[in-house]
Amino acid sequence: MARVVVDVMPKQEILDPQGQAVAGALPRLGFEGVTSVRQGKHFELEVDDDVDDETLERIAETLLANPVTEDWTVRRVTVESADGSVAGAV
Amino acid sequence: MARVVVDVMPKQEILDPQGQAVAGALPRLGFEGVTSVRQGKHFELEVDDDVDDETLERIAETLLANPVTEDWTVRRVTVESADGSVAGAV
Repeated sequence: MARVVVDVMPKQEILDPQGQAVAGALPRLGFEGVTSVRQGKHFELEVDDDVDDETLERIAETLLANPVTEDWTVRRVTVESADGSVAGAV
Repeated sequence: MARVVVDVMPKQEILDPQGQAVAGALPRLGFEGVTSVRQGKHFELEVDDDVDDETLERIAETLLANPVTEDWTVRRVTVESADGSVAGAV
């Protein structure tokens, strides 16, 4: 069993109103020094060991991200056993 | 200038209908071997170097996550210069 993390972010040229809302709220709440906030999605998948990288890439492209407006990264995270944030979720 | 990544996930005991929808769609689209999908949020912040970890933790807790229903992690990512996904966003 392997854990896979997919992070999906709006492309640079795409407006990010959620991130901008957070960035605008920070000074009002007294937090200074944050010059940019971008908000995206974070997926944690638990997959069988025989699922290859190409399949993961297709899953990300097909279901998790919109290739027109979003960029994404896929990375494997080593997990020895069912220990946490994804494992107990089903 | 430092880049900070905050990942926010629903707590284990909280239902995650978005993740379950993705998990349910995968077999219908021909993707086998994914046993669990959890969906959360991924924030990329660009902050001044004098913003300390305690402030980042308070930002995450106050604005980015709901402590009642979500867990989060804060990590710094080293960036030499404005080179990418956060830097060009403002």
